[in-house]
Amino acid sequence: MLFLAEMEVRLPPDMPPERVDELTGRERQYSQALQRDGRWPHLWRVAGRWANVSVLDVSSVDELHELLSGLPLFPYLDIRVTPLARHPNAINRGEDDA
Amino acid sequence: MLFLAEMEVRLPPDMPPERVDELTGRERQYSQALQRDGRWPHLWRVAGRWANVSVLDVSSVDELHELLSGLPLFPYLDIRVTPLARHPNAINRGEDDA
Amino acid sequence: MLFLAEMEVRLPPDMPPERVDELTGRERQYSQALQRDGRWPHLWRVAGRWANVSVLDVSSVDELHELLSGLPLFPYLDIRVTPLARHPNAINRGEDDA
Amino acid sequence: MLFLAEMEVRLPPDMPPERVDELTGRERQYSQALQRDGRWPHLWRVAGRWANVSVLDVSSVDELHELLSGLPLFPYLDIRVTPLARHPNAINRGEDDA
Amino acid sequence: MLFLAEMEVRLPPDMPPERVDELTGRERQYSQALQRDGRWPHLWRVAGRWANVSVLDVSSVDELHELLSGLPLFPYLDIRVTPLARHPNAINRGEDDA
Amino acid sequence: MLFLAEMEVRLPPDMPPERVDELTGRERQYSQALQRDGRWPHLWRVAGRWANVSVLDVSSVDELHELLSGLPLFPYLDIRVTPLARHPNAINRGEDDA
Amino acid sequence: MLFLAEMEVRLPPDMPPERVDELTGRERQYSQALQRDGRWPHLWRVAGRWANVSVLDVSSVDELHELLSGLPLFPYLDIRVTPLARHPNAINRGEDDA
Amino acid sequence: MLFLAEMEVRLPPDMPPERVDELTGRERQYSQALQRDGRWPHLWRVAGRWANVSVLDVSSVDELHELLSGLPLFPYLDIRVTPLARHPNAINRGEDDA
Amino acid sequence: MLFLAEMEVRLPPDMPPERVDELTGRERQYSQALQRDGRWPHLWRVAGRWANVSVLDVSSVDELHELLSGLPLFPYLDIRVTPLARHPNAINRGEDDA
Amino acid sequence: MLFLAEMEVRLPPDMPPERVDELTGRERQYSQALQRDGRWPHLWRVAGRWANVSVLDVSSVDELHELLSGLPLFPYLDIRVTPLARHPNAINRGEDDA
Repeated sequence: MLFLAEMEVRLPPDMPPERVDELTGRERQYSQALQRDGRWPHLWRVAGRWANVSVLDVSSVDELHELLSGLPLFPYLDIRVTPLARHPNAINRGEDDA
Repeated sequence: MLFLAEMEVRLPPDMPPERVDELTGRERQYSQALQRDGRWPHLWRVAGRWANVSVLDVSSVDELHELLSGLPLFPYLDIRVTPLARHPNAINRGEDDA
Repeated sequence: MLFLAEMEVRLPPDMPPERVDELTGRERQYSQALQRDGRWPHLWRVAGRWANVSVLDVSSVDELHELLSGLPLFPYLDIRVTPLARHPNAINRGEDDA
Repeated sequence: MLFLAEMEVRLPPDMPPERVDELTGRERQYSQALQRDGRWPHLWRVAGRWANVSVLDVSSVDELHELLSGLPLFPYLDIRVTPLARHPNAINRGEDDA
Repeated sequence: MLFLAEMEVRLPPDMPPERVDELTGRERQYSQALQRDGRWPHLWRVAGRWANVSVLDVSSVDELHELLSGLPLFPYLDIRVTPLARHPNAINRGEDDA
Repeated sequence: MLFLAEMEVRLPPDMPPERVDELTGRERQYSQALQRDGRWPHLWRVAGRWANVSVLDVSSVDELHELLSGLPLFPYLDIRVTPLARHPNAINRGEDDA
Repeated sequence: MLFLAEMEVRLPPDMPPERVDELTGRERQYSQALQRDGRWPHLWRVAGRWANVSVLDVSSVDELHELLSGLPLFPYLDIRVTPLARHPNAINRGEDDA
Repeated sequence: MLFLAEMEVRLPPDMPPERVDELTGRERQYSQALQRDGRWPHLWRVAGRWANVSVLDVSSVDELHELLSGLPLFPYLDIRVTPLARHPNAINRGEDDA
Repeated sequence: MLFLAEMEVRLPPDMPPERVDELTGRERQYSQALQRDGRWPHLWRVAGRWANVSVLDVSSVDELHELLSGLPLFPYLDIRVTPLARHPNAINRGEDDA
Repeated sequence: MLFLAEMEVRLPPDMPPERVDELTGRERQYSQALQRDGRWPHLWRVAGRWANVSVLDVSSVDELHELLSGLPLFPYLDIRVTPLARHPNAINRGEDDA
């Protein structure tokens, strides 16, 4: 089951650089683990912003929230979620995308 | 090069059903041709709306506009485009997604 | 799995009263069938508006969209969907609400 | 009498973790007491956000405000309230939901 | 129990003048009956707009919606409702205003 | 002459409690003096928010601004003003309300 | 007493040209009469829009609404009113501007 | 003197195709004449929309409005204007861009 | 050439009072010098807000930006500029207003 | 390939002046280098704001993001990007502008 998640990063301007590095380092690991196990199939950068467009593949809304609220940067993210259904015109229904 | 396109369909309420059918039929063909040739890699329905979230893969902005303005439903679409860059945390940079 | 659906009804002002009656009659039947089978557990009217706040209980986003797009009034509805997860402070997790 | 309350939590980024724990601990107790006495019949998490969707059952607007302004997190909450009336299509009018 | 109702009138531009007169005439009667029985204690015009700011005094949200949806102009009104509680600084709590 | 004033209080989260108490104490006195002399005829709390809906009765816009900018909490208020005219359907034009 | 009025003209696209001419002709006369008697001291066009920015000088909000609602184009105007007070830094307080 | 003009085209859905062709044909001629005489130095299409981003070079705001309101499509355009000043970091101040 | 400038003042809540006084004192001098030389013909306070509505008379957009960015409070101002053209219905075109 | 980038600068109010100078100095150098190599063909100041309107000429979205995220002020910029296509009415298609 797919969900679009649009995430905007908003760090406090006075966060020490080491803290930023530590958080973004853990974010990378967390994100890549989820990409590898197939639950975060798409991750793109929004050009010009510290923001991303993601597609997540989970089996329930609870799992989705658990996954998102576990992001190391979660306290600094503004996330908007849109549930995605199969499109009747899509030719690859139900496999890698659904 | 990838672009997110969020499309909302707004048909005039008095459009005759045959006209709707004809337009949506042509839209399906147009969309599926682009999916098959790889330029429309992702197409999802927004749950609860006559709207979709799409990712388009084109080699220029001109090609993107040509592709979108050629949609049979284009006069009735409200389309918002977001340019997508590679995300530094993405593990599959540049292949199946780009 | 629960989703909040906020629905606003926008009929064309020149729709004939019989057509309005027919649509709202079918809407009532459709809605009550889903309430009875447990997939539409909550339905409230927004005071002062021709709008409702609903909670739907489905097993997938595809089922959610199928359910909503099958509403007789769907072409005239503006629907916003919010996925709902269990709240850690909720005392009745997962039973009568899910 | 039911009211929808959409609550968004916005803690100052520099609040000490112990203070956060203390506040959220008291929030949980406060919220669960109200759930138990029937005045907070529904409490859901908005997926991807530190936010909730709640339905409150009170006998007056004054009681509603007293209840909400008593939340330990109240100074950090952005709350939007929508009064809910019975929906004519609802099959369980007036009992557990109203 | 008081509710603020902000109402904006939006008639279709092609409504025949007689129909407008009939509706606004019935609206005046309906509104004045409610003012006389005390349920519509305040009614003001928003300067420069075909809109009003009203305060309604009802004993439940159901009564509020019944009252508002009974307005002859209801199909053409955009109404926003805000529940009003007693203000701790108000000196005349509960009498002529409630 | 009546004006609707919608006021939202936004104190800095790190204001010391004594300062908050002092300001809100002075606010109460200031507000009640104006209520007693008839220039602040209505004051309601917006349910769920640190906000109020007020109606002010002044003889000029200059007096209105003087009154509002004299509020002890003024530096922390977001105030929106709407000029109110008599409504043609109002039955008590010009007396206690105007 | 001064009020800023921002007016946007929205004629139905199918209004016959003669009707447009008649309305705009009467609007011009109405507007110029008010400019001559001093109640409409400033009238500017918003570049690129069928819209204006106006300053009106009236002795009450009722007079303001009477003046604005008497505009021949009133049914097709979207008007936003802002009450203007003397600015403490203004050097010509109260004369030609008030 | 440069102004950014963002123009969105909104034709009534029932405009006859010949009328659309006639208007867009005249629009093209009008626009190209202004491009040739240097007053419309930049004209770009917004990808995915019937909209453009333009930069206009005029000697006064009156000339700007005259130019824009003379567009054959003007009654169907939603235009937002932003005045552009020289940027202190720009290396080609005042020549080809101004 | 006239421009409407709507300015909202947003000082950091912890700015020392002497700094506020110094800035607002210099703002007053700067503003009054421009009013005297005719480039700031209108300056009004928005009732209920620390904000103003101004009309500026300059000979270019560069001059406008130089004037506005020279305001002592500029770093704390949110300014929206609207270019104003002569209105065809205005009876005093081009003199005291332009 | 052209992109419109609208950039708004938002420095923390307590940033030390030397830090501001250092950042804006590096921003100037970075920006002018890109202007000289042709990738930042247009750069304008938005009158009255610490903001700019830019047009960037890049060969991919990745290059665009790399360019923008490399701005010394990037952590303090709010950037909105709009992809620009050739306009069918533009007379200088494809050369200096495209």
